[in-house]
Amino acid sequence: MPKILSVNAGSSSLKFKLYAMPAETVIISGLVDRIGHSDAVFTYNYQGTHYKKALAVQNHTEAVQLVTDALLASGAVRDKQEIVGIGHRVAHGGREYTQTTKITPVVQQKIADLATISPLHNPVNLLGIEAFEKLLPSASEVAVFDTSFHSTIPPKAYMYALPFEYYAKYGIRRYGFHGQSHQYIYSEVNRRYDQDFSRKIISCHLGNGASVCAIRDGKSVNTSMGFTPLAGLVMGTRSGDVDPNVLPFIAEKENFSAADIRQLLNHQSGLLGISGVSNDVRDVLQAEADGNDRAKLALQIYVHQIQSYIAAYTADLGGLQTLVFTAGVGEHSAPIRERVCAAFGYLGVKIDAEANQDNDLDISAADSRVKVLVIPTNEELVIARETEKVLDS
Amino acid sequence: MPKILSVNAGSSSLKFKLYAMPAETVIISGLVDRIGHSDAVFTYNYQGTHYKKALAVQNHTEAVQLVTDALLASGAVRDKQEIVGIGHRVAHGGREYTQTTKITPVVQQKIADLATISPLHNPVNLLGIEAFEKLLPSASEVAVFDTSFHSTIPPKAYMYALPFEYYAKYGIRRYGFHGQSHQYIYSEVNRRYDQDFSRKIISCHLGNGASVCAIRDGKSVNTSMGFTPLAGLVMGTRSGDVDPNVLPFIAEKENFSAADIRQLLNHQSGLLGISGVSNDVRDVLQAEADGNDRAKLALQIYVHQIQSYIAAYTADLGGLQTLVFTAGVGEHSAPIRERVCAAFGYLGVKIDAEANQDNDLDISAADSRVKVLVIPTNEELVIARETEKVLDS
Repeated sequence: MPKILSVNAGSSSLKFKLYAMPAETVIISGLVDRIGHSDAVFTYNYQGTHYKKALAVQNHTEAVQLVTDALLASGAVRDKQEIVGIGHRVAHGGREYTQTTKITPVVQQKIADLATISPLHNPVNLLGIEAFEKLLPSASEVAVFDTSFHSTIPPKAYMYALPFEYYAKYGIRRYGFHGQSHQYIYSEVNRRYDQDFSRKIISCHLGNGASVCAIRDGKSVNTSMGFTPLAGLVMGTRSGDVDPNVLPFIAEKENFSAADIRQLLNHQSGLLGISGVSNDVRDVLQAEADGNDRAKLALQIYVHQIQSYIAAYTADLGGLQTLVFTAGVGEHSAPIRERVCAAFGYLGVKIDAEANQDNDLDISAADSRVKVLVIPTNEELVIARETEKVLDS
Repeated sequence: MPKILSVNAGSSSLKFKLYAMPAETVIISGLVDRIGHSDAVFTYNYQGTHYKKALAVQNHTEAVQLVTDALLASGAVRDKQEIVGIGHRVAHGGREYTQTTKITPVVQQKIADLATISPLHNPVNLLGIEAFEKLLPSASEVAVFDTSFHSTIPPKAYMYALPFEYYAKYGIRRYGFHGQSHQYIYSEVNRRYDQDFSRKIISCHLGNGASVCAIRDGKSVNTSMGFTPLAGLVMGTRSGDVDPNVLPFIAEKENFSAADIRQLLNHQSGLLGISGVSNDVRDVLQAEADGNDRAKLALQIYVHQIQSYIAAYTADLGGLQTLVFTAGVGEHSAPIRERVCAAFGYLGVKIDAEANQDNDLDISAADSRVKVLVIPTNEELVIARETEKVLDS
């Protein structure tokens, strides 16, 4: 069976998972963390054994070297050539890439160019691509864009009401992110349930980053992240939506540059900014339980914003059949799911308290008119599937 | 009967309406337009007669002099002292003024101070107050704030997920505007219908400025404008919501200052920015009918954004009993109302095509589960009512 490697390169981390396709069996998976530090950590799992090593890892090339060595040393592959494809998660595909795309020098250049609108992610995604190109030259490399799944969003939802020239000149529009996650959620709902539940889905990806996606007949029709991953929901340290006039106001009052404003909105806001406690929902819930008023307020804003998007997207879908929670918070936080769902009695949403407490797949009450599900996301699998599809075509 | 003057002072205009209270009879109403120009126009209506004069009007004091002269000359009042109160529309009451307030030197100073967050409106509102103070010194002056009706919005909806210090230090939060209009809409629904229709109302004020308000049991619980009137819906020249990261992006690309960004978002965006045709819905509809694709796109974005807010606010209300359209577009544009309502079949919204075409009060179809109304707004009357209430107390 052909083996496909799924890769997610972040600024200081490299995650990988090797699949046997089309069986979708995970052969080996792992992570190089704290790349660029002397106390980096390399971990992987193979045939039930957990391997862990602390060491210095200078850069992404060294990290990829560790990975390829481990693939062979572990016995996961006997020859590098067994790996026919490598799927790379790439944050931003811009207007060019509405589909998963085989990587060529031209594509690499485009990914680099898109750093103007994705400065934090595209350059590091590219580091991963270049390192594997060097160390696994026989495998075809494929770019799976976070934005592609959202390429079906109609103009009424992706355009901002700015002067048209900014769309034409810079491509300023809603792109949306977390595409692999929302796509996976759709595939799971579609696999498990009939079309009474799979035609109108709202997927809530609630992690440190967070987004809601309206999925109609398998296609994204709206999503809460925008031109960048800042927009929409309140996140760990990101503000989500604010009155745009707030920005020039703060810039003038505090004598902030554009970079300062970006830093403020992306790294000092969200749950952390309001609560003053943490960017982690678990910590903020704990602080709330301990009587911290700002933690309580932060959670109220956080939940309310999720509710607003779910409600808004019922209009994009013309109703709601299935509401899904996924990613760290979505999969594990019963209190957040319970609070979010409490607003939707008018849509017939009812959850089963015990099933919710247990993080069951189906947490809807028997008489709920909307199915409410908890589905662990699997972005790596979508990357492998997309890669296989491109290699087969 | 005590006579109360309702005043709305803009940067280059002064609108007034004199009411006999509590009968709410309009005695005389008028407008000084193009203040500051040599070709200003003064118009008023008294006892069925329309009066109009073109002349030079240097400033707000001259405009108020024209008005007070006309009040006497027309016979609307025999003595200035008959006017017991003057209610001034004041855009921004900040965190201080959650109620209509009798104007004192301290209040005037606070209104002036709030120019930091309402630079376009509060200073000109103050000009009106000062001019009437000079020319009608016997009347009590009262400030009726655009923001007061929204003071019941809960923290989960009025807080932005920015670092808490910006709320504490600068009062950065959602305030909301169009308060008199949304308050009037509630009073009309409440007067005409029983509580099956008056407990959960969404009011859509669609003019050149535009906002949606969720009204539960007579209280505003959410509204689409925010810290300033820029946020929320697509308006004539205002962008409404955009990914906040778009702003530093444009600022860097175009080398824009904070003032340039504000200019762009407030005066070059919205329907005008997208369509390139006009800020007026009627012109854009005409251009669309003539085959202009960007006009069509502008209207799609405009309508979609209204739909998103209506849908979101059904969650704030826990359902929807009555949907109201008001202000220029809301009262007169059947195609916009029809397009907006088309998304809400899932809530049981159905409009009667003929009633809608005729701008009838009740445009709901017989089998609509939600009442859909067209109510001409009357902000001046709310100002008079609020003024009377304060003077009586």
